[in-house]
Amino acid sequence: MVHEQINTIVQQSEAGYQYLQQLSLAERAALMHAIADAVEALDETLIQTAHEESALPLARLQGEKGRTVGQWRSYANAIRTGIYAEARIDKAGEGKADIRKYNKGIGPVAVFGASNFPFAFSTAGGDTASAIGAGCSVVFKEHPAHPRTSQLMAQAIAKGLASYGAPESVFTYVQGSSHAIGEALVLHPAIKAVAFTGSFQGGKALFDLGAKRAEPIPVFSEMGSVNPVFAFPEYLAANPQTLAAQYIGSLTLGVGQFCTNPGVFLAVSGEAFQAFKLAVSAEINNISEAKMLHEGIQKAYDHGKHKLTGQPEVSLLATGQVGTATLAQAAVFVTTGKAFLTNEHLSEEVFGPTGLLVECADAAEMYHILDRLSGQLTITFAATDTDVAEHKNFFMRAQEKCGRLLFNGMPTGVEVVYGMHHGGPFPATTDARFTSVGPDAVKRFLRPVSFQNWPNTFLPAELQEENPLQIARIVDGQYRID
Amino acid sequence: MVHEQINTIVQQSEAGYQYLQQLSLAERAALMHAIADAVEALDETLIQTAHEESALPLARLQGEKGRTVGQWRSYANAIRTGIYAEARIDKAGEGKADIRKYNKGIGPVAVFGASNFPFAFSTAGGDTASAIGAGCSVVFKEHPAHPRTSQLMAQAIAKGLASYGAPESVFTYVQGSSHAIGEALVLHPAIKAVAFTGSFQGGKALFDLGAKRAEPIPVFSEMGSVNPVFAFPEYLAANPQTLAAQYIGSLTLGVGQFCTNPGVFLAVSGEAFQAFKLAVSAEINNISEAKMLHEGIQKAYDHGKHKLTGQPEVSLLATGQVGTATLAQAAVFVTTGKAFLTNEHLSEEVFGPTGLLVECADAAEMYHILDRLSGQLTITFAATDTDVAEHKNFFMRAQEKCGRLLFNGMPTGVEVVYGMHHGGPFPATTDARFTSVGPDAVKRFLRPVSFQNWPNTFLPAELQEENPLQIARIVDGQYRID
Repeated sequence: MVHEQINTIVQQSEAGYQYLQQLSLAERAALMHAIADAVEALDETLIQTAHEESALPLARLQGEKGRTVGQWRSYANAIRTGIYAEARIDKAGEGKADIRKYNKGIGPVAVFGASNFPFAFSTAGGDTASAIGAGCSVVFKEHPAHPRTSQLMAQAIAKGLASYGAPESVFTYVQGSSHAIGEALVLHPAIKAVAFTGSFQGGKALFDLGAKRAEPIPVFSEMGSVNPVFAFPEYLAANPQTLAAQYIGSLTLGVGQFCTNPGVFLAVSGEAFQAFKLAVSAEINNISEAKMLHEGIQKAYDHGKHKLTGQPEVSLLATGQVGTATLAQAAVFVTTGKAFLTNEHLSEEVFGPTGLLVECADAAEMYHILDRLSGQLTITFAATDTDVAEHKNFFMRAQEKCGRLLFNGMPTGVEVVYGMHHGGPFPATTDARFTSVGPDAVKRFLRPVSFQNWPNTFLPAELQEENPLQIARIVDGQYRID
Repeated sequence: MVHEQINTIVQQSEAGYQYLQQLSLAERAALMHAIADAVEALDETLIQTAHEESALPLARLQGEKGRTVGQWRSYANAIRTGIYAEARIDKAGEGKADIRKYNKGIGPVAVFGASNFPFAFSTAGGDTASAIGAGCSVVFKEHPAHPRTSQLMAQAIAKGLASYGAPESVFTYVQGSSHAIGEALVLHPAIKAVAFTGSFQGGKALFDLGAKRAEPIPVFSEMGSVNPVFAFPEYLAANPQTLAAQYIGSLTLGVGQFCTNPGVFLAVSGEAFQAFKLAVSAEINNISEAKMLHEGIQKAYDHGKHKLTGQPEVSLLATGQVGTATLAQAAVFVTTGKAFLTNEHLSEEVFGPTGLLVECADAAEMYHILDRLSGQLTITFAATDTDVAEHKNFFMRAQEKCGRLLFNGMPTGVEVVYGMHHGGPFPATTDARFTSVGPDAVKRFLRPVSFQNWPNTFLPAELQEENPLQIARIVDGQYRID
């Protein structure tokens, strides 16, 4: 029954894909703006519903709604520039054919909603926007933690499609919480790519399904990480208080429910680290207990905290205000560099407001930890220019381990700009080469096609001789903006 | 023992990767030009050796050598432009961080040599050149069909590296023909991507290995296809002779040992098709028996031909001059559209100079065949403008099935230009999103890294404020070539 249902939906989605394939870049952008308008027009019912389903504060949800609308608009504008067409033209010459290449949509895409951003990484979130931006229809699988929010968003998308005059099949919706549904969707032969944000377990399972299909497909799973913060001597000595306030602020923001939550803090042991620990204790004591996204998440959080508590050479430094079975309590633990190197449980993500401070014996141990680190979304440095100059090799090697390097800031807060890379080496994601935030997220759903000696009038507009779309192209090896 | 050997080699390659990471774009380009010079300087011994090992004609090998040198140079020049850095800069603003992104090398790459292009798709071929262009060291696994050729090429690469002053570890070499060696290489945790050109069986096995690793890695296998040629009524009626000559020329070029060999020819049954068949028979009768790359390939070819002969509704139309156990005989078979649709063996690639003509009952059947087609490197149209106008939907849908669409030409001949896409949907390759020919081949081995609020002096040159490399960048959402 699941298969029949999925089959019907994916067939609709194929029709939606065919429709999108016939739109010009400007038309696709206009369609996306129509969806943005419809999402923007949703009233307080959306915010209230999401608040009830996710326990996220109203102000945060209001902000996330704005971000979601902004994503549609910024991706639409990026699409209209033609940058993602990556048009390349090599004109015919002596013994040479005329060869022209552009990027087109890869086919219908399955998108799985995340629970921690019920707007921006769910139904009308960045994955849906970037897939449609690429000219791909979307089959969306709702997240069971916020079905009502999801349906309101799906209605807005349908409204946007209708107001533009596009068929509903551009965006189809799958309800239900069973794994069988998601599995059938990923395995359907007409689905050509998958986007997911969530747990390692879930993301890796989808990746494995995608790879084992008769026709393997790309599965973009963003699975989070511990986002280490490395503090260097000069900086730490000068700013223990400020750094502690920043760290605890970032660690507990949104009840610690960000993929980029800085779960691990590392520095060389010593006086400065002692001062930092004192400041961290003071800061965390003020953090109120808070409701997490759903029961399952709090259970996993309490389990993760409990597991940390039981590890040798790990001690509890301080906690936030007292928690309950339904309200999460923040906590910070301390361990040694040696223990962190030998006990792999210590580098597992605890999704929620819990941090682990790692006291390294010396700089060499910190280098060693960096080299042993698995892939991360972000790595943050608390450092002065002198620190950087003294540890240049450390900074260089850190690039191998993450998607984004931050200097004296905190990793929560992922701006929706061209320069953003929200991704990173496995196990942070299943494909280090693509971002899920920023207009470049569109690239995940494109593939190139070349045309050889093709009649000009039948070429896609992106490749026609007269450059009717006025887009940047590489013509005979030279960048040209006509 | 295999594992120890591979481990030592991959550790060397890691050092080579670290070295490359420290080179500027211009330095990397200069290193590639040094390798190009060293390959170019190889004397007739190379051509003679390759001729002995591959049976390919001397003139063809001379041409392939030039192509190989040209690849290094064109990729080097592309690298120097900074196009593959894809630099994006979003400057700090009110409440906004400074975020800058560029592409860097993914890590050490394993490259497997192909037998059918002992220069251009082997040791110093496009995969090696594009990986080094991306800043990735290469561990090269020789193809057992041309070990002496391969070693001469490896020596040239070593010479090029030495003349530039780069360490040998940038390119390391693995001998031997056992599958265990290749397997150990792909499974080594320090290897971050794999490139392969060859059979479906081999390419898919490597892909599966890459996906099942603890850390999955991208495996780019180019596995060939039947490269269908669709002939349309007006064109076929007007040009049966010319088309037959072109088709047989392309089918038998280089003893049919090209990935883009047009194995299947389709048109609607009728008078024009009859005239075409007569012309094909006359053409193929003139084709001499010829030596294939190695014994294994001829065996597989004879087996494939034999298998076709035994299929119901398939008949032999004509053959080339008589073959032997060591010389391949060209052949053309005929079948119906109906048989082609129902018997999957008929769309299997026969690597060598054998073609299958498919007589479709009507245009609808040809459409149906297109929709059922698996992924191809190329699809070719023999058509007039009127034909295209009448079958617009056919041409549009053909994009879903291949990487390159040709109009009134033949697919053999893959030019090394920006506009080339040598790739295509599975099973033509394991990743439709990347090409293995043309400067864009470099993209396979890159991944992005973002820098947030980073001190200008410590940024990679690609991202520094003053744009010291003078490369095109997207700054605050606008394309800029400073």
